[in-house]
Amino acid sequence: MNVQDYMQSLGREARAASRYIARATTNEKNAALQAIYHALTHNKEQVLAANAQDMANGLASGLDAALLDRLELTPSRFDAMLEGLQQVIALTDPIGVITDLAYRPSGIQVGKMRVPLGVIGIIYESRPNVTLEAAALCLKSGNATILRGGSEAIHSNRAIAACIKDGLTAANLPSAVVQVVSTTDRAAVGELITMPDYVDVIVPRGGKGLIERISKDARVPVIKHLDGNCHVFIDRDADITKAINIAVNAKTHRYGVCNAMESLLIDAPIVANVLPQLAELYLAKGVELRGCEQTCALINASPANEQDWYEEYLAPVLAIKIVSGLDEAIEHINQYSSHHTEAIVTENYTKARRFLAEVDSSSVMVNASTRFADGFEYGLGAEIGISTDKIHARGPVGLEGLTSQKWVVLGDGHIRG
Amino acid sequence: MNVQDYMQSLGREARAASRYIARATTNEKNAALQAIYHALTHNKEQVLAANAQDMANGLASGLDAALLDRLELTPSRFDAMLEGLQQVIALTDPIGVITDLAYRPSGIQVGKMRVPLGVIGIIYESRPNVTLEAAALCLKSGNATILRGGSEAIHSNRAIAACIKDGLTAANLPSAVVQVVSTTDRAAVGELITMPDYVDVIVPRGGKGLIERISKDARVPVIKHLDGNCHVFIDRDADITKAINIAVNAKTHRYGVCNAMESLLIDAPIVANVLPQLAELYLAKGVELRGCEQTCALINASPANEQDWYEEYLAPVLAIKIVSGLDEAIEHINQYSSHHTEAIVTENYTKARRFLAEVDSSSVMVNASTRFADGFEYGLGAEIGISTDKIHARGPVGLEGLTSQKWVVLGDGHIRG
Repeated sequence: MNVQDYMQSLGREARAASRYIARATTNEKNAALQAIYHALTHNKEQVLAANAQDMANGLASGLDAALLDRLELTPSRFDAMLEGLQQVIALTDPIGVITDLAYRPSGIQVGKMRVPLGVIGIIYESRPNVTLEAAALCLKSGNATILRGGSEAIHSNRAIAACIKDGLTAANLPSAVVQVVSTTDRAAVGELITMPDYVDVIVPRGGKGLIERISKDARVPVIKHLDGNCHVFIDRDADITKAINIAVNAKTHRYGVCNAMESLLIDAPIVANVLPQLAELYLAKGVELRGCEQTCALINASPANEQDWYEEYLAPVLAIKIVSGLDEAIEHINQYSSHHTEAIVTENYTKARRFLAEVDSSSVMVNASTRFADGFEYGLGAEIGISTDKIHARGPVGLEGLTSQKWVVLGDGHIRG
Repeated sequence: MNVQDYMQSLGREARAASRYIARATTNEKNAALQAIYHALTHNKEQVLAANAQDMANGLASGLDAALLDRLELTPSRFDAMLEGLQQVIALTDPIGVITDLAYRPSGIQVGKMRVPLGVIGIIYESRPNVTLEAAALCLKSGNATILRGGSEAIHSNRAIAACIKDGLTAANLPSAVVQVVSTTDRAAVGELITMPDYVDVIVPRGGKGLIERISKDARVPVIKHLDGNCHVFIDRDADITKAINIAVNAKTHRYGVCNAMESLLIDAPIVANVLPQLAELYLAKGVELRGCEQTCALINASPANEQDWYEEYLAPVLAIKIVSGLDEAIEHINQYSSHHTEAIVTENYTKARRFLAEVDSSSVMVNASTRFADGFEYGLGAEIGISTDKIHARGPVGLEGLTSQKWVVLGDGHIRG
């Protein structure tokens, strides 16, 4: 079968399965997830062996260390993956929830019922744990899903897919509720994103290049996460201790994550109180500092160029700019940010309120580290990604982001006059 | 200036204006809408004269009666348009509303704040009243908008645009908050839907052909309304009086609207009690009936073919099918419907509940006419359209559909451990 026919057949099966899973009860969905849990538990050795094969192939073909690290399923990572599955089982089922049901002047009652989106296509890198995580979130939210992971993880993904299939079958659900693309042909991605009859939304997870390409070519809506160029602004009315704790945590807690701070803005009047001690803390942790002219005059930093203000380093590098006040801070952020997450540190009520209202990013924070921008921290239970779009879902996307709502109207023979 | 440069310049100005209007207070936005109201009131004669010119051109070029009717701004339609503007002024401002602000185990408070989408492009037919309606809804929801109406209405639209501009200026808002495309060059649409840097979402209003073309070519998200093939299912446990009232109202209250019933499904056991009297009522109103084989055996109807079950007639034509029960009704609807609005008539609790849960349409109703599927009837105050998509907005789209949410995090020096 050629790739197009293969993907079309996956699509057709997913569409049919989506009608079935959309009607499944919470108990049926949880029973399926439990059955998947058991299948994985019983086949742990086989999955790890499949992963070892991917690792060996990856090593032989010269994959870099970071990619190999993401690819590897150690026994403890395998267990963590199963723990994540139990967390999804424990989440409240969003489907069928009716809200805002109220009487209208005509006498009808109008409300909204939460419903699945239908079929969700997930495109991701060679990270086998994403296969299970995405499958579980889509199933719990009543969606069918087609998963297309990176080709380096193909053996791991096939092994996990076999367990998912066993679990679905054991729970009497159609196995097409979760389908893992079993070809490594790159054309499969092109097909998956151009089947509007069979796929309702695409969630790409991966590098910026991949996501830009998918967004450009997709013929279905894309919930996309481009990049996280997050800012912290230390206002002149900041509590200096809080400011330093937050600025250090936001940059150095983890470097390679999208909610790490990449640019620090400091209000000019307090720069002498804050910057030298911050610089010392950063340098002690090996953070490379790049600064505006004023910054470079005060501390040991290399000059930042225009591109630095746009950069998502994902590394121990920080751009620092001294600003004349809140207005310049907001203006700088709205211009250079990727609209992911920004924080102000201040004790001033009015400035906190303005920052929250006027900064146009998916998360805006007062006196908290940008590292909190995360589905678990926000109480979503899990996240399928962090959207930097405004349409449909913004910021951390949990189960609710994988759903829609329909209108429910209850009458007693009501007609329009 | 060529069309591309012109549209790019509109886009740039809209993006800049969107930042301004996003921060405007409710009072500033309402004052601008009031100023637009006054500008229109004072220039009523000029607007009507411009419309008369469009009408004369339309007549001369042989526009059909339906298009001419939509194009015409009579004095009373002008007044109704201004009344609609007052209704938008009276609507609650959705922007800045914070919901679900709650403490998390880490100690941070997390909630969501409603925010504008940014820049909205509206593409519509030669209906001058849409120019004002769309402009008012976008402005009230804090968005900048670029309006591209049908070329036959160009003089009317320019005249209304001049009043909107006067109003914005009088209220000290940038006039680029609302821009009307002043060229009739069709290439302008192609540009408008492919400027992701400047336009956040496109709302097309018009015929199915136009909307399919726009969806196919757009490089930004589209909130689209394709068609309304709405169903009423009369269950065997229906109250016959309610069933007949609803079936007559859903079909005959207005024919050319998207929430009119196009297919009627009747449960086999009660068909003899319902169909003959319904057929008599329809025939008295001049409704052409097309039916399945069993229908044609019972009443005077022509045979329906497969295409009839898909059809949005927008006319006094009705397709009738006798079904074996709820399962077949749901299956038929989910297969043939355009997923706009469907109603069941029944006194049976369990079947009502199943119909609501299992029918996959933007509005599902029990014992009410499909004609209620409407932004005003649902309490949205006004609607920019009715979405037949599931992503972002579904069903009638009011102010809230023109907004997004961002996450708000409040801390007291909180860092991730």
